[in-house]
Amino acid sequence: MHPFDEAIDLRASALQDAPHEFTGQTHPAYANMVGPFGGTTSAQLLQAAMLHPERLGEPVALTVNFAAPVADGDIRFVARPMRTNRSTQHWIIEAHQTEGVVATATAVFAVRRETWSDVEAVMPAHVPAPDALHRMPVKGMPAWPQRYDMRFVEGAFPTAFDEQEQTHSRSTLWVRDEPARAMDFASLAAMSDSFFPRIFVRRRRRALIGTVSLTTYFHADSALLAQVGERHVLGVAKALNYRHGYFDQTGELWSPEGQLLASTHQLVYFKD
Amino acid sequence: MHPFDEAIDLRASALQDAPHEFTGQTHPAYANMVGPFGGTTSAQLLQAAMLHPERLGEPVALTVNFAAPVADGDIRFVARPMRTNRSTQHWIIEAHQTEGVVATATAVFAVRRETWSDVEAVMPAHVPAPDALHRMPVKGMPAWPQRYDMRFVEGAFPTAFDEQEQTHSRSTLWVRDEPARAMDFASLAAMSDSFFPRIFVRRRRRALIGTVSLTTYFHADSALLAQVGERHVLGVAKALNYRHGYFDQTGELWSPEGQLLASTHQLVYFKD
Repeated sequence: MHPFDEAIDLRASALQDAPHEFTGQTHPAYANMVGPFGGTTSAQLLQAAMLHPERLGEPVALTVNFAAPVADGDIRFVARPMRTNRSTQHWIIEAHQTEGVVATATAVFAVRRETWSDVEAVMPAHVPAPDALHRMPVKGMPAWPQRYDMRFVEGAFPTAFDEQEQTHSRSTLWVRDEPARAMDFASLAAMSDSFFPRIFVRRRRRALIGTVSLTTYFHADSALLAQVGERHVLGVAKALNYRHGYFDQTGELWSPEGQLLASTHQLVYFKD
Repeated sequence: MHPFDEAIDLRASALQDAPHEFTGQTHPAYANMVGPFGGTTSAQLLQAAMLHPERLGEPVALTVNFAAPVADGDIRFVARPMRTNRSTQHWIIEAHQTEGVVATATAVFAVRRETWSDVEAVMPAHVPAPDALHRMPVKGMPAWPQRYDMRFVEGAFPTAFDEQEQTHSRSTLWVRDEPARAMDFASLAAMSDSFFPRIFVRRRRRALIGTVSLTTYFHADSALLAQVGERHVLGVAKALNYRHGYFDQTGELWSPEGQLLASTHQLVYFKD
């Protein structure tokens, strides 16, 4: 079993009066410096809705708010369908630990149909193939980056905090699960949080950081994700604005064929 | 009293067992084709947290999910602080009407402090001043665009649906409340939804559309908003991807002095 599948493996509550409850655990393979990688927590929150017997369609939008540090151990998820329409469904999902709520999420699911489609965002051109690039060394890093095969075209995580401030924080990289795993909504949700905090790329100095809110729009449906399979996808990320303790960054995940699979945005707390 | 202040005027519940409840109404001055302008509903959801006696700090992130059409009339808001930390606070906010939940929101509030700050997003340069541009004609439009003074530099709402597809959907415009009103978080939240759906700018043809999820990151604090006052701010918006019934668009709102006040993202349903 792939460690990611272990990490998002939730168990429905056996209690009849708790039909919306699921239990999961943090997974050592996706540990961060302290507590779990936020991407895995996001994927678990999404998975609680995915597994719910009343679920309609596939996810199109997910917002996760990280309310408190997640402790290693059990997490209780409560996923409630708040409104189910003919082709859309709206969810509120909560993650609880002993001391209270540690994360909240909202999700929109939808039954999609073919329409006129087009992309206005621009995929980086003339990017070397993944095979022509070296994998980012992960020795000494927390567990979670070791679960991704990242091959940077530009904007790699700094190898040293030399405080040489850069003019921008843009990164372009090929990324896939490590070991390879066929892409699905859960892994796309987690990968949307795999872009390193832009402030490290920009300032090359230590800072205390923590994502407070993460939004992902899923442009891919499951058929398109199946086409991507286990291959690398192209990620691009950049910061927009840093001000008074918070910055935002925006990212895109592209299929090798140039389909935008997801766009993702997050607001990050920082202390310099 | 400014119509926007009337529109976001909420009344706390007098019931002792409903400390998180507020009542508001849709306002005819902000009517859309059917039901109210989503920006006003967003501002009401935010306002429910702003007015809550347990509120800490100022908003830094707001996500609103539009779950069902809002009917003209009363709306009952339930704003619950889910987690209060030393300098951050996480909210779930719901909007209810007779037939059920019509919108849900999550918000993050924070006590901010000065840090290193910088902007990486690029404000459009060489833009004519608002006085040098004409206000968008609003005759024949729904009520809500009449409540904004919009002066387009590029990417105006099409004057005719001539089906001449454009190469992109980018818009640049000066915008303020009409009549003028000093900027605050509620108006910034509403203005974040004032960018017309990109598909109209891009395709110049009729389509059924509806925002399903709207996220705004507030980079400005109240001191910076006070500096902006009643002046126009510069808005830019563009679409990223249209696929199988949904597209996303991203926007920025800039102070005349070049401070990024807010970045905003939304996912929109469309039927062509």
